[in-house]
Amino acid sequence: MARRARARIDRLNADTTVPASPHVQRQLPLFDVIDDETLAVLDAQVDWLIENVGIEFRDDPEAHRIWIEGGAEVKDNRVHIDATRVRELCRLAPPEFTQIARNPERNVVIGGNNQVFAPIYGAPFVRDLEGGRRYGDMESFEKLVKLAYMHPNLHHTGLVICEPCDVPVSHRHLDMVYMHMTRSDKPHLGAITEMSRAQDSVDMAEILYGKDAFDQNCVIMGNVNTNSPLLVDKVVSQAIQVYCGRGQGIVVVPFILSGAMGPVSTAASVTQAMAEAMVCCAFSQLVRPGAPFVLGNFLSSMSLKSGAPTFGMPEPVMSNYAIGQMARRVGLPLRCGGSLTASKIEDAQAAYESADSMHSTALAGANFVLHAAGWLEGGLCTGFEKLVMDADRLGAYQKLLNGLDASPEALARDAYEEVAPAGHFLGCGHTMRNYTTAFYEPALSDSENVESWEEGGSKDMRRRAYERWTTMLTAYEAPPLDEAVDEALRDYISRRKSEIPEAWY
Amino acid sequence: MARRARARIDRLNADTTVPASPHVQRQLPLFDVIDDETLAVLDAQVDWLIENVGIEFRDDPEAHRIWIEGGAEVKDNRVHIDATRVRELCRLAPPEFTQIARNPERNVVIGGNNQVFAPIYGAPFVRDLEGGRRYGDMESFEKLVKLAYMHPNLHHTGLVICEPCDVPVSHRHLDMVYMHMTRSDKPHLGAITEMSRAQDSVDMAEILYGKDAFDQNCVIMGNVNTNSPLLVDKVVSQAIQVYCGRGQGIVVVPFILSGAMGPVSTAASVTQAMAEAMVCCAFSQLVRPGAPFVLGNFLSSMSLKSGAPTFGMPEPVMSNYAIGQMARRVGLPLRCGGSLTASKIEDAQAAYESADSMHSTALAGANFVLHAAGWLEGGLCTGFEKLVMDADRLGAYQKLLNGLDASPEALARDAYEEVAPAGHFLGCGHTMRNYTTAFYEPALSDSENVESWEEGGSKDMRRRAYERWTTMLTAYEAPPLDEAVDEALRDYISRRKSEIPEAWY
Repeated sequence: MARRARARIDRLNADTTVPASPHVQRQLPLFDVIDDETLAVLDAQVDWLIENVGIEFRDDPEAHRIWIEGGAEVKDNRVHIDATRVRELCRLAPPEFTQIARNPERNVVIGGNNQVFAPIYGAPFVRDLEGGRRYGDMESFEKLVKLAYMHPNLHHTGLVICEPCDVPVSHRHLDMVYMHMTRSDKPHLGAITEMSRAQDSVDMAEILYGKDAFDQNCVIMGNVNTNSPLLVDKVVSQAIQVYCGRGQGIVVVPFILSGAMGPVSTAASVTQAMAEAMVCCAFSQLVRPGAPFVLGNFLSSMSLKSGAPTFGMPEPVMSNYAIGQMARRVGLPLRCGGSLTASKIEDAQAAYESADSMHSTALAGANFVLHAAGWLEGGLCTGFEKLVMDADRLGAYQKLLNGLDASPEALARDAYEEVAPAGHFLGCGHTMRNYTTAFYEPALSDSENVESWEEGGSKDMRRRAYERWTTMLTAYEAPPLDEAVDEALRDYISRRKSEIPEAWY
Repeated sequence: MARRARARIDRLNADTTVPASPHVQRQLPLFDVIDDETLAVLDAQVDWLIENVGIEFRDDPEAHRIWIEGGAEVKDNRVHIDATRVRELCRLAPPEFTQIARNPERNVVIGGNNQVFAPIYGAPFVRDLEGGRRYGDMESFEKLVKLAYMHPNLHHTGLVICEPCDVPVSHRHLDMVYMHMTRSDKPHLGAITEMSRAQDSVDMAEILYGKDAFDQNCVIMGNVNTNSPLLVDKVVSQAIQVYCGRGQGIVVVPFILSGAMGPVSTAASVTQAMAEAMVCCAFSQLVRPGAPFVLGNFLSSMSLKSGAPTFGMPEPVMSNYAIGQMARRVGLPLRCGGSLTASKIEDAQAAYESADSMHSTALAGANFVLHAAGWLEGGLCTGFEKLVMDADRLGAYQKLLNGLDASPEALARDAYEEVAPAGHFLGCGHTMRNYTTAFYEPALSDSENVESWEEGGSKDMRRRAYERWTTMLTAYEAPPLDEAVDEALRDYISRRKSEIPEAWY
């Protein structure tokens, strides 16, 4: 019995299917945590920040020109504009849009009741149980992209799943985008760190999808952080111009540790984040009305004893719920949250913090969730085990977001007619009809008794996760890609690498 | 810097304060996951179960007499009664009530917007990092009661924090109740496993509180499981008669693993649980109108491959949210959920499952939460580390349940007047005024950088939790108790032990 149970778990661990549904289509009602009176107070604060404090746009004269043409006043780099005008411009952005994937079965809808999960973004380090902690490199990057592609609970592969630190910074974006385009057929992001890198990403997407599909669809998006508080530098304003200018999507994310880049208050930080992101959305719609825009949010707290950022704490959990409600109010797709933690390894701390963070992210209705899997050390490190552990839990949120099935079959009246009081339902007709689909069965949770678990080697979840991702990689098969397209991409990269000097900054 | 950070964490670990607030007074809005149309369908199913299927009351002729006198029909042990009559009787129970503690500062309000957290109940085994897994005994029991008393985030000490397996079963309840009465001054539960043990618990409470306080207050409660499906045996019906008969409180809990003790469907299991608990509430109000009653619920899923119970999965998470809404509808205080897991040790699985389980328990508005800390192995084992790890996270839920502060001070307009765009808020006036209370700072989360963490010995959360509970115990001081009362309790126990033969069943 114990051996059979173990064999079943091993089979589950080897499961490498890709998702039946390419994203979550939520049925569960939304959770409104703010009453109408408080909402009015918060709206007024957003407007006050936009109108009376203003947002600085720096080092981008073209951005200033666009703002002035759009009716704003720019004084000492500070953009002042009517909040009403900002809200009108935000309404030009689509409340939901489709980002197509090169495999049409993996197209994702971003916005509305749809929720899309993507892995960690931007960690310079990686860690796995056998290899320990080390700088990210292209070998790790490739493995992680393959895992994100293979995992049924990830819908989108993001971009900087770890920093491939062995590739020159000036060439890195080309190799990263190419990996996502060829090792996976799920949708992904492009680079943003410099205007030319954003352009390369968009150009490569045009090659991959062809001009027609590119012109008619969102095929790639950029994800970029404002310089909170209240500053938008040229990396942001130029990324918006490149992506939105060509009809592609942009995610703009105020990154605020309350107490540092915002006041030491969740309410103030939430309104500041809304003001920054809404002004960026308005800017994107001046660049191109109707361009896909995702209102981003990344708020966390800090240890006010040591200054260290903290994650999965009640204040960012509260901010997830609050920002969900506020984003719905302005009618924009939302990115927030993720499976976040300050822990260095995949211990209980990592899981408690990640679960509270992701539970609130999911219930808040976040439409695009970067960092949904793989995050360790406040985002400094991508964990191989963490990636598959978090992704395993994402299946539970997907099931929860389906809501409560109260159909006649779910009410099971025939079961009560069949089973007497004090009886059991194990073998009744209703159970036989429904048991294979009744429950989400996570691959990495061991629910066997202590004897079976000990017999199997007393493996903790971290060890089981190591076994799972290594098994997954041995089963990897690249999704098919037209050889001519692949060659065109490789030609593009090779030309650009010869044009761009190698640089490590 | 690293050393200072470490010293701070050590100080936090030694923190053994008792709570400023004896229970959570929730400000956060409630989360309704079921729409009105579905609610009507579920209500109709509850009524159908009560009226057409009926609930069996077995081996308790007195219970049958009470039912018949109350207007029910009893046929072959099966109680049939109008659902309308059941709902009327349920309205006689108080929507909220106070359980007093022998230290009045620790009185708890159960019901309404109040939420009370208590530790694990009923595990035969214990586990700690150094001692490993073993049968519970009175030494462990005493330590665990002390920890529950000392922890600021636990409001109530429950009862069977582990089974003290070295004490004869027939005497065990006396020693357990005495430990809670003397090692702690927080409220607690009494025994229920047999009518005479329930009576002993209530009698001891009358000695502890004195006759007047006992007659005028709820000073003790019993917690008892129905025999799902649809059976109430005499343990339950007699516990209700003993506790409610003397004006004390009772928690009645259908324990349903969907697919075994209920249909393999969350909706059906939720309605079955409501039907069982509401009928027991109606019974309690026939015993004594106005007696404090807590509508309990314990639903979980199972692995339909191996039959093992699973915890922290989306189906029980959904049932927490759903049952919260349904309990509010009938106006009864609710017990559900907890920090539940099937994991054998305090690894990431334990924490993911516990966090999803407890997050939903807290948001669902559960008024009394047994198993809020310490649960391992599907409830078979109390973890010493798990107890303090979970309790640490309970502080985060308490903070979240305070809701969003949007007062003028929280909006921090003066901070924006002081700090320019791209500046930082670390030293501004608003931060200085608020930083000490802005964030929940959990004692067991390590948010330092990887270098500091390695310098401190690369301790995972489990190791830090071990250090915390051992440190707490060295600082334990018993709360004061009148010597005459203590003596009266000891006399009672000694008399009862001489009357009751030692038995191990």
